[in-house]
Amino acid sequence: MTTTAFDMSAQLSRRARTMNASAIREILKITQQPDVISFAGGLPAPELFPIEDVRRAADDVLTRYGPAALQYSTTEGHAPLREWIAMRHGIPAANVQIVTGSQQGLDLLGKVLIDEGDTVLVEAPTYLGALQSFQPYLPRYAQIPTDDGGIDVEALERVLHEQQAQGQRVKLLYAIPNFQNPTGRTLSLERRQALVELTARHGLLIIEDDPYGELRFSGEPAPSLYELGLALAGGDPERNHVIYSSSFSKTLVPGLRDAWVQAAGPVIAKLIQAKQGSDLHTPTFNQMIITELLPILPRQIETVKRVYGERGQRMIARISEHFPAGVEFTQPQGGMFLWVTLPQGLDTTALLPRAVERKVAYVPGSPFFALGGGENTMRLSYSSAAPEKIDQGMRALGETLSEALA
Amino acid sequence: MTTTAFDMSAQLSRRARTMNASAIREILKITQQPDVISFAGGLPAPELFPIEDVRRAADDVLTRYGPAALQYSTTEGHAPLREWIAMRHGIPAANVQIVTGSQQGLDLLGKVLIDEGDTVLVEAPTYLGALQSFQPYLPRYAQIPTDDGGIDVEALERVLHEQQAQGQRVKLLYAIPNFQNPTGRTLSLERRQALVELTARHGLLIIEDDPYGELRFSGEPAPSLYELGLALAGGDPERNHVIYSSSFSKTLVPGLRDAWVQAAGPVIAKLIQAKQGSDLHTPTFNQMIITELLPILPRQIETVKRVYGERGQRMIARISEHFPAGVEFTQPQGGMFLWVTLPQGLDTTALLPRAVERKVAYVPGSPFFALGGGENTMRLSYSSAAPEKIDQGMRALGETLSEALA
Repeated sequence: MTTTAFDMSAQLSRRARTMNASAIREILKITQQPDVISFAGGLPAPELFPIEDVRRAADDVLTRYGPAALQYSTTEGHAPLREWIAMRHGIPAANVQIVTGSQQGLDLLGKVLIDEGDTVLVEAPTYLGALQSFQPYLPRYAQIPTDDGGIDVEALERVLHEQQAQGQRVKLLYAIPNFQNPTGRTLSLERRQALVELTARHGLLIIEDDPYGELRFSGEPAPSLYELGLALAGGDPERNHVIYSSSFSKTLVPGLRDAWVQAAGPVIAKLIQAKQGSDLHTPTFNQMIITELLPILPRQIETVKRVYGERGQRMIARISEHFPAGVEFTQPQGGMFLWVTLPQGLDTTALLPRAVERKVAYVPGSPFFALGGGENTMRLSYSSAAPEKIDQGMRALGETLSEALA
Repeated sequence: MTTTAFDMSAQLSRRARTMNASAIREILKITQQPDVISFAGGLPAPELFPIEDVRRAADDVLTRYGPAALQYSTTEGHAPLREWIAMRHGIPAANVQIVTGSQQGLDLLGKVLIDEGDTVLVEAPTYLGALQSFQPYLPRYAQIPTDDGGIDVEALERVLHEQQAQGQRVKLLYAIPNFQNPTGRTLSLERRQALVELTARHGLLIIEDDPYGELRFSGEPAPSLYELGLALAGGDPERNHVIYSSSFSKTLVPGLRDAWVQAAGPVIAKLIQAKQGSDLHTPTFNQMIITELLPILPRQIETVKRVYGERGQRMIARISEHFPAGVEFTQPQGGMFLWVTLPQGLDTTALLPRAVERKVAYVPGSPFFALGGGENTMRLSYSSAAPEKIDQGMRALGETLSEALA
């Protein structure tokens, strides 16, 4: 018989056709030349990983649980881990779902919440990975302007009214209130309160993504949107309209892929069903290892905060020294990133090859905008950069920018 | 201000409303009473897990790779693991995608292939978990009748013509050719060849799910649909219309959640993009542990095959002894399951409480039919049952059935 030449591309779903290779992933390839100092990635500092503790924890888990550590387990997650998370947040374990990295939490939330054409409100700029998680469910996006205090709540209200006037179904707001990726900005307390009240009034869910909240190295902590939502709901997690997502990736290690979602019962029930079809459960062994590591978590957080704080401050000092006038930058109080804004008209994507010639790399800011914009912005990560590399890299980047501005 | 009582359920997506708690999950709860001998689950035998090898592998991986074992890693998967899989199947590593359990492979394939309303052809009965993975993408199902030789290919051709006559877009066939879950049946060589040719002629993709293929304890192995598809495509994996999925869950351990998909480039490219949004990557540590365990895989497979073979044969012997006339059952040549068919008119769901009274449990067969049917069928798993439990359980089940038939 004759063989049939298949056009595989013709078999793809409509949603698959809307997926693109991550712009950042492509950019990272360019920047991964040897001898280029890259601030483009967003990796936690590997030299801080508690390897010996993980080694001991893996060993202990196999001794204590035996084959159960390697067997199938429940979709909800390892009970002691869920209970620990729940206790810290003052809610029942039933409101906690373990997921395979925050990214899975976002995918599952997209799956159970977003209908095609629903409007998802996002910060401008926002975390690119969240857009990738939501995209397969074919939402529309509306961008909310942000400034140094995070989301502009008055602008949010205007956008909401516009959307409603256009007959759009606004389903949820996705927000990263602490040391946002990509900007490093933190939402002020007043705005948190206003945001939670406004969204509750409008029947809008919030997905609060908080991977960096524990990594505050300066300033005063503010309550999470989840806590404010819980207070607004009279302490009843079943009536809290804020869904909270966090992770052990930035505080312990990312390579075990352990994170969680806190939400009201009806959302958790659907997350469980969606997760059954997505990966059955998060790896048993990994959840047990993370649980075993919980006693070292406070020590680990202190170390990470101290080191990121030093690196962040050093980067800011060198930027102040080397960057030309007219370049603005954020001064994060925690997390892994800061955000640089060049004068209007400059394009950081066009500038990247010139930076790479000078052996330094960053991520252009534009891909972080759901609807475009930010051509004159860039994200710099200080989390995994050694001090002398920060010195060297900011000098080279300063030269690149000075040349571009001249 | 007044608190707003949210109706969380009203916020759910249309696809979330179509999701249900797994029927089997609910049934397993009933059957998990202490002192009930359950053949309902589908768990690999935990006493065969190579715990000491995993302990050593975890330790070695941390020594060899250090922090890289716990860091973020590429979406495609750990290169040495992909290369090993690719070499075994005679294809380039670029055609292999590592996934977080076969279940994730099915979810991602559903995501990148299925548009709402596309027809997915499934065996009657089929693996319930696949239906759960595909369901969020809102396919229509068409059931293909099966008999002791697996899928009835002539019936498949009739169904195809019917679907096409109705103007339906038939996208893919999902099949488990080896020791099928739930029936334990294996597709004959002649039918494999006919199936691959028929689907190629009709421009239909096959998803071949093969978690049990290595666990053959009797009879002669047949080539996979993937191999036949590759031959039909002149050895070119880019033109193979068969997508292959397998896993280390049944041969090594399930709790690490390591599996893979083999497919043509355009499908892999979209799987990578979809996986970026789903969990970024499969846990780094786990992929490295599995790679480290590859040298013991042949020995492990021999052990599992021997034990499952003994248990399967013992179950068949006891069934022959204790079950009343008129009850039919499959005689699997591998895998973990066999399938029992009672005379028409009997209902295994209604019968389950009576079995549980006699301290024995099974899974009713009906949930394995995408479009219903099979009320008189049940699945029995012998993989994790000790010999004396098989003796005791089959006697009790025989009594239950005799009583029902009397």
